Amino acid sequence: MRCWRVVILALALGFPGGGRAALERVDLLVTGGTVVTMDAERRVIENGAVAIRGSDIVAVGPTEELQRRYRARQRLRADGRLILPGLINAHTHAAMALFRGVADDRTLEEWLRNYIFPLEAKHTTAEFVYWGTKLAALEMIRGGITTFADMYYFEEEVARAASEAGIRVVAGETILDFPAPDFRTPAEALRYTQQFIQRWRGHPLVVPAVAPHSVYTCSAETLREAAALARRTGAPLLIHLAESKLEVEGIRKREGRSSVQYADELGLFEARVLAAHCIWVDAADQERLARRGVGCAHNPTSNMKHASGIAPVVALRAAGVAVGLGTDGVAGSNNDLNLFEEMDLAAKLQKVSTGDPRALPAREALALATIEGARALGREQEIGSLEPGKRADLILLRRDAPHAIPFYDVYSQIVYSLKASDVDASLIHGRVVLREGRVLTVDEGEVKRQAARLVAAVKESLAKKP
Amino acid sequence: MRCWRVVILALALGFPGGGRAALERVDLLVTGGTVVTMDAERRVIENGAVAIRGSDIVAVGPTEELQRRYRARQRLRADGRLILPGLINAHTHAAMALFRGVADDRTLEEWLRNYIFPLEAKHTTAEFVYWGTKLAALEMIRGGITTFADMYYFEEEVARAASEAGIRVVAGETILDFPAPDFRTPAEALRYTQQFIQRWRGHPLVVPAVAPHSVYTCSAETLREAAALARRTGAPLLIHLAESKLEVEGIRKREGRSSVQYADELGLFEARVLAAHCIWVDAADQERLARRGVGCAHNPTSNMKHASGIAPVVALRAAGVAVGLGTDGVAGSNNDLNLFEEMDLAAKLQKVSTGDPRALPAREALALATIEGARALGREQEIGSLEPGKRADLILLRRDAPHAIPFYDVYSQIVYSLKASDVDASLIHGRVVLREGRVLTVDEGEVKRQAARLVAAVKESLAKKP
Repeated sequence: MRCWRVVILALALGFPGGGRAALERVDLLVTGGTVVTMDAERRVIENGAVAIRGSDIVAVGPTEELQRRYRARQRLRADGRLILPGLINAHTHAAMALFRGVADDRTLEEWLRNYIFPLEAKHTTAEFVYWGTKLAALEMIRGGITTFADMYYFEEEVARAASEAGIRVVAGETILDFPAPDFRTPAEALRYTQQFIQRWRGHPLVVPAVAPHSVYTCSAETLREAAALARRTGAPLLIHLAESKLEVEGIRKREGRSSVQYADELGLFEARVLAAHCIWVDAADQERLARRGVGCAHNPTSNMKHASGIAPVVALRAAGVAVGLGTDGVAGSNNDLNLFEEMDLAAKLQKVSTGDPRALPAREALALATIEGARALGREQEIGSLEPGKRADLILLRRDAPHAIPFYDVYSQIVYSLKASDVDASLIHGRVVLREGRVLTVDEGEVKRQAARLVAAVKESLAKKP
Repeated sequence: MRCWRVVILALALGFPGGGRAALERVDLLVTGGTVVTMDAERRVIENGAVAIRGSDIVAVGPTEELQRRYRARQRLRADGRLILPGLINAHTHAAMALFRGVADDRTLEEWLRNYIFPLEAKHTTAEFVYWGTKLAALEMIRGGITTFADMYYFEEEVARAASEAGIRVVAGETILDFPAPDFRTPAEALRYTQQFIQRWRGHPLVVPAVAPHSVYTCSAETLREAAALARRTGAPLLIHLAESKLEVEGIRKREGRSSVQYADELGLFEARVLAAHCIWVDAADQERLARRGVGCAHNPTSNMKHASGIAPVVALRAAGVAVGLGTDGVAGSNNDLNLFEEMDLAAKLQKVSTGDPRALPAREALALATIEGARALGREQEIGSLEPGKRADLILLRRDAPHAIPFYDVYSQIVYSLKASDVDASLIHGRVVLREGRVLTVDEGEVKRQAARLVAAVKESLAKKP
């Protein structure tokens, strides 16, 4: 019956060939959802569909139209769910998931000196990073994240774990001027980064990056070499920038300039830069970031929890800076990898800090976690919205929980009401990685067993603390 | 086998009578969980248990000990879950659940004048309040809330819906000097309140209250009469206080005093008062609130979303004020009734606003939502902690989601990592109201059907807006 109806419709509409043979073949048709495209027109399509071939989106439109145009090998019925672009976590240190909540409610100095640095020196091994990233991938996929930007150590393991889990990653080995868990010098880390870029370049899910830690933990020479490597290879550059007042005051004292100006005049911004935090940036810095095409990753939870300050997101965006949204790591800066909470928080933090309840409305908060995050990463041609030609990274959200009822505005519902737990399906690069709330690409039991083993050793270290 | 072991243990420990007959009978034994008591010593009992008889907690202690002492009609195995006192939502307008997200990202004036006031005038009927409260109860019970303080209209329906849902409520009809959806004058609302108090006094779940809206929407006379009624009946008094700069500046201009001083000198604080918000309170106000035993309900989401300001929670607590935690209503002020998000946010908001990452640590944030909320409501003898003699209001939390793994500190885990969706069982007044994530006391399908019907009418009104 249905086939005949399609044929008749096709004939009636004068499609070339007219019959079933005229239907274009696709691999997957996601139908019957409210499609929130996040395209330039911010189209929302009721009873909409997405057609996917291989890793790519072929078409986005009304279900009826796409059913007329495409014959799909497989069908995923959204049943009234929301269909959204996958969320982009623009800044994290995923493997720190194994240190989740290890030392909360402490000063930054106590946290770093007494906990993070000694624990990382002892426990952060290749295997720790591999399983930590798997645990993080599990949580991120469940919560609708389809891409994350990562800076940590043993980044080879991050790339391996993420690609196995089927999640997209922009991964950069942290380069520091003091000894890190894997390398003792910035030269070693830079050499590793160069090889890392060669190994992973062209991978469908992994984008290798260059990741000098910050302008206060890397010398001018290290920063220059990092920028040169990024320029030479075309790899993006990830860095922490203007996160604390202490940093900015220190750089001003030493260099007579702001952190942003210093970074620029060093030549850092010749690379494609994603700068995390950007809290302590004045109007001149904001204008400079925009002019130099630097993307920012805003991390509201981290900034509040460390009492770092409040990033001027509204002003940055007004200046023309692409601002994405990040969770930061979960060992002190945050305790989850949850962009629903970050969207919600970003909107509210801008409202209370600007004194204007209209600041960063829900639609714009969702943009930070999707298309603007993609822009901040320089990957807006590939991800961040549901449009033909982009990768098929999309998520389905249930709308039947009590907290989702009723709904008057789709963006308000997504940003202010829905939770990570409402995500029940996810596709990355055209592959179904989450279905009915279950991650298909990660062995959850095995991750939990390995995590328990590795965490037992961390707890032993903690028990020995004076 | 087990009986014999109990008998032998009892004999060995010299219990009177020695044998099985010596076991005290209880109705329910919740066993094998990590009990986070929130008692004065903040005891946390690994492999702990709670013994319940009727509506009351009889004992809290190690599972092994309670199994020796009690014979239970029924057993609930916590299987390693957390056992917490039920959460207390110290300020909301529950029935506004049906207006969830109706007019977000707007100025307070536009929100009230163009949306809330006209929509309430048209749609807020007894039946709307009844079903709205049912929907809210569904969400609150699912998310671990066992008590809520409510100010709205048709409060009889709130009491009825809450008591049917088996959730504890402190309910006060909003008294205003301008026409409300149910009463046109404060005199009518006061009369209704008096009858409401008579009808519900002594109910096991419902505590009727007196609820003048605020010092700027009620005349001095209305406020005095409300206070007198509260004093006469012993009912608690709920009010909004020092929420906006506009309010406090207006009162200062008119009365030459702060909102808090004005309220006190009117005699309001002769009653047992729970004041919502308390954002714009200086050191003198804080000291006054403490001295007069006024409790505060802090609503971080609402305060951020309306850009009202940041309540000085750390300072209020240092001054000796009991501060509870509220969601406020979900039509603009918030979009969910979720105390896990409010705890998390309260902690982080104090950190960033005081510049101290140690401010309001996780344990204290949990206290706001439990024992301090009970104190703020003047009900700390009955609820807010797991202690013998208190009502059996408790919740069980799963700890196996990826975002809950690993854990190093129980309070950090609860406040910063766990979600409302991790709550999977709840008892209120000794009755199991939630089990395996399903609310047993509310017909979810029926609530959704009624909500859809009532919301359709609201959407029709909105569609007609110019």
